[in-house]
Amino acid sequence: MMDIQERITRLRDEMRREHLSAFIFPTSDPHNSEYTADHWKGREWISGFNGSAGTAVVTLRHAALWTDSRYFIAAEEQLKGTEFQLMKLKVEGTPTIAEWLGKELADEADKEVGIDGMVNTFNSVKELAADLRKQGGLTLRTNFDPLARIWQGRPPIPENPVEVHPIEYAGETTHEKLARIRKALREQHADGMLMTALDDIAWTLNMRGSDVHCNPVFVSYLLISSQSATLYTNKVKLTKQVEDYLRSEGVGVEPYEQVKKGLKDYFEYNILLDGDEVNDTLYRSVTREIVEGESPVKRLKAVKNEREIAGFRSAMLKDGIAMVKFLSWLKPAVEAGGQTEVTIDEKLTALRAEQPLFRGISFDTIAGYEAHGAIVHYEATPESAAQLEPKGMLLLDSGAQYLDGTTDITRTIALGPLTEEQKRVYTLVLKGHIDLQMLQFPDGASGTQLDAIARRSLWQAGLNYLHGTGHGVGSYLNVHEGPHQIRMEWKPAKLQAGMTVTDEPGIYLEGRFGVRIENTLLIVLAEETECGRFLRFEPLTLCPIDKTPIILELMTSEEIDWLNQYHATVFEQLSPYLDEEEKEWLRIQTQAM
Amino acid sequence: MMDIQERITRLRDEMRREHLSAFIFPTSDPHNSEYTADHWKGREWISGFNGSAGTAVVTLRHAALWTDSRYFIAAEEQLKGTEFQLMKLKVEGTPTIAEWLGKELADEADKEVGIDGMVNTFNSVKELAADLRKQGGLTLRTNFDPLARIWQGRPPIPENPVEVHPIEYAGETTHEKLARIRKALREQHADGMLMTALDDIAWTLNMRGSDVHCNPVFVSYLLISSQSATLYTNKVKLTKQVEDYLRSEGVGVEPYEQVKKGLKDYFEYNILLDGDEVNDTLYRSVTREIVEGESPVKRLKAVKNEREIAGFRSAMLKDGIAMVKFLSWLKPAVEAGGQTEVTIDEKLTALRAEQPLFRGISFDTIAGYEAHGAIVHYEATPESAAQLEPKGMLLLDSGAQYLDGTTDITRTIALGPLTEEQKRVYTLVLKGHIDLQMLQFPDGASGTQLDAIARRSLWQAGLNYLHGTGHGVGSYLNVHEGPHQIRMEWKPAKLQAGMTVTDEPGIYLEGRFGVRIENTLLIVLAEETECGRFLRFEPLTLCPIDKTPIILELMTSEEIDWLNQYHATVFEQLSPYLDEEEKEWLRIQTQAM
Repeated sequence: MMDIQERITRLRDEMRREHLSAFIFPTSDPHNSEYTADHWKGREWISGFNGSAGTAVVTLRHAALWTDSRYFIAAEEQLKGTEFQLMKLKVEGTPTIAEWLGKELADEADKEVGIDGMVNTFNSVKELAADLRKQGGLTLRTNFDPLARIWQGRPPIPENPVEVHPIEYAGETTHEKLARIRKALREQHADGMLMTALDDIAWTLNMRGSDVHCNPVFVSYLLISSQSATLYTNKVKLTKQVEDYLRSEGVGVEPYEQVKKGLKDYFEYNILLDGDEVNDTLYRSVTREIVEGESPVKRLKAVKNEREIAGFRSAMLKDGIAMVKFLSWLKPAVEAGGQTEVTIDEKLTALRAEQPLFRGISFDTIAGYEAHGAIVHYEATPESAAQLEPKGMLLLDSGAQYLDGTTDITRTIALGPLTEEQKRVYTLVLKGHIDLQMLQFPDGASGTQLDAIARRSLWQAGLNYLHGTGHGVGSYLNVHEGPHQIRMEWKPAKLQAGMTVTDEPGIYLEGRFGVRIENTLLIVLAEETECGRFLRFEPLTLCPIDKTPIILELMTSEEIDWLNQYHATVFEQLSPYLDEEEKEWLRIQTQAM
Repeated sequence: MMDIQERITRLRDEMRREHLSAFIFPTSDPHNSEYTADHWKGREWISGFNGSAGTAVVTLRHAALWTDSRYFIAAEEQLKGTEFQLMKLKVEGTPTIAEWLGKELADEADKEVGIDGMVNTFNSVKELAADLRKQGGLTLRTNFDPLARIWQGRPPIPENPVEVHPIEYAGETTHEKLARIRKALREQHADGMLMTALDDIAWTLNMRGSDVHCNPVFVSYLLISSQSATLYTNKVKLTKQVEDYLRSEGVGVEPYEQVKKGLKDYFEYNILLDGDEVNDTLYRSVTREIVEGESPVKRLKAVKNEREIAGFRSAMLKDGIAMVKFLSWLKPAVEAGGQTEVTIDEKLTALRAEQPLFRGISFDTIAGYEAHGAIVHYEATPESAAQLEPKGMLLLDSGAQYLDGTTDITRTIALGPLTEEQKRVYTLVLKGHIDLQMLQFPDGASGTQLDAIARRSLWQAGLNYLHGTGHGVGSYLNVHEGPHQIRMEWKPAKLQAGMTVTDEPGIYLEGRFGVRIENTLLIVLAEETECGRFLRFEPLTLCPIDKTPIILELMTSEEIDWLNQYHATVFEQLSPYLDEEEKEWLRIQTQAM
């Protein structure tokens, strides 16, 4: 990897020139995006590691990369031959970045660490600065971006066109959404806010773009005051029609780079800034009184309206049809030979693309056969792709963007004979998956409170997974959406009727296989009793769950009933859209156990 | 209630003199105790409400009292006829104290609110001050205690003698404990700490007192530096023998009132203060650099050593014997007539008192028959006590202090025929109780993550309880011990092997009945797998669980197996200590279902 070494060398030259002893590259962009446009993939450029989460740190002598358990195996591979040492997050003995820098820079004369304030949130910078201070008084500089000097051939900020998202799918006008946002701001005693999250902006303005792979968002900021709303984006992205639309909704447009000026000219008494979202540089450029608080937009966006829910149902139906066409094709195709993790992904995407309103995939497909299934966020390449054989397990996590909704589904499929261990683990994961969907819970519970329900069957067997159990799903928007999640870590956001959330427990046994089973769910009102309101989950995903690996004796009768009922619904909903052969396949797949 | 009115009037006179428009009375004392010596029961004195949690607020015009769901019914009763309006915490529409004061004081010229900084933690005062500021700029004064002027006949600070807790029960010398505390302080970069929690001090010094009802603690502070440790307490409490003991463990003694001077004379570079524990007045009197952080003592104390665990087992055996003697007596006694909620409590306490090393009860018994069982923290008085009849349900939550351990147990007992609803609710609560005890979970999980396991069966039926599911239990110390808890609210403290914790789900149906079933558990290592270390619960409590209300069809076979196995253990452990009649009773009670 000469390439990476050369980049590090040039970075160190710049660091020496600027008297910086270390530089930190996070994964994000000026909008705190989970997935970013290529322009901001600085961490990948400097380290070669392309996972969706990780932080690279380069000192004058060493380099290290922190990432989480999903990427341990992939990162190990990709960092091979580079200077970068892999730092496994949440593993005992792994130092924090600050602790590591404290030791690495102990003997350096320059105690300054660099980070680009534009691609780090205000709160993360504040926390990092405090942590560094404790490490022998390291200081942090945030106004220098070495990438601007050393990244030759850096991709430009995308200029892709933007389109208006039809009201028949959005279900609420921008005018109405702005009114609800302003009402929420008033409740937080704020006159306005700076919106920086790209999916929040897309939702608010009922507009979609294609600046980020799989996420139909566009690079922009939205500055809202009590009287006006201004979109900061590259005007080349907007057609006359889109400009007219924005004007009619009361939204002005200014160039993307003018957002700092916009903040300077902002004339109200105060402004709400969410320190977990707004980047450090913009946060610090505000001159009015700052109301520190949570942006209300995420929680407004998370509760879907009737049109959005109808859209989800339509998208899930189409996605289920594509999945059934794919699954009924899969086993014979594997038996015929020549299929790999990559070819089946192409087949699945082609089947989805045949469906009306298909706009693309919602994230890079994870197709992991046998041992590859144990790599949580595995992405097959033509080089790595395993040949599929009529035995063992295939973990398939995929999803699509349709104009009327976003899908996210995981199935683990037996391609032939399995080991007893595979059957046992599969059954336990399925139990967890079903147990969460069967749950009724008090209105206002947080995802953290529910997380153990999906894990209990696994815990009892000495198994566990380190990723979350579920996340919100956007309405023709990002496949990962907040503020709610179902996970071990504390997430105070309350689960509410109308929210979407995934249910995706899994087990990953390194070198052997992985199992994950995922439906996307809708939260609905279950009942109101003298103890209060109770909610429950309704599966939106329509696709059979492979029954062949199930060890029936490990299942409770309630779990079996649930599965039979789910399968009856799947057959009822999907069969009218299938040919005779597919229908017969589905009939067998969904037969009661 | 002329009495209360008169007190309020005198308080308002003082408030006017001091230009205060409101005064706030919390439940606590200078040590942030859950239960306090009578000297600090100012909230009870001013309002008449004697629950263990609540805050009274008096303005020049109105008065209100905030308490939680455990006390809604009791508070309603006790506040009747006073000016105090009941404010139900965690009920929709209930204003916070700050919000209420914002409205109440909107038209007052004086915008100052009073609170005694000595009986409120630093963090709670900080938070309150910030909340009041948002309410039209209300300010907070903390250096004035009106009770010192208006409370005639105020009980003095207790002067009860203190005793040394024998090493055979403590299991670790004070010398060793101080070394572990100092090591933990160094890890937090602190040279010393001020310990204010009375149970932490009692644990550290291996000393016990009797200053607080049911809690064997003594009023004191402990100031620890890297070289010395000083106990601030009324010297009249110490015998020559105790003074010698303290000297031999390297602990000096100064008068209780001298703690402020001690803090002034503290000569190290910095000092750890836990803002959630140290009171506002003392916190602000510190002149050295403050290391804000969590006191390490609670988590050291929470993990019991082998001697303490052996002591728990011994105490639970004795408590189980007393409980079985009581339960086998109960039904015939009720049938014979004349028993009330009070008389049976006396009987139970008398049976416990016959056991070796008995020191008293660990909290006021809750004996709630039928509708009284729905009052979560009901305490029967001779006036309120219901006559027990051979029908319906008795909820009995009780515990004892033995020199070798503290107990806490709840049983709900069918005194005769039950309604179908009672049987159903009893069975669902029992399922939750068992489900938590059957759980295996990852080492390091928090109680918040596990809480739903105990609630699931109830939630499915549209039932829920608003209190926590479990709390730590001290070793001949407070029956409520932190830092861990099992509850809906976020408690980050990790569950560790060696910790004790209760398991006490319940359901309370106002006007009808209440069910709670509680064991005290020990957390132990279950297994270590490729997914990490797993813990499980081992019941410490030894006492049959009434089988007569159980609807067998609602139970899973695993739950029934658990109950049968638990009952087999109970019989095996207790039967050698019972007479033939009691043994026969227990044999039937613990027969497999």
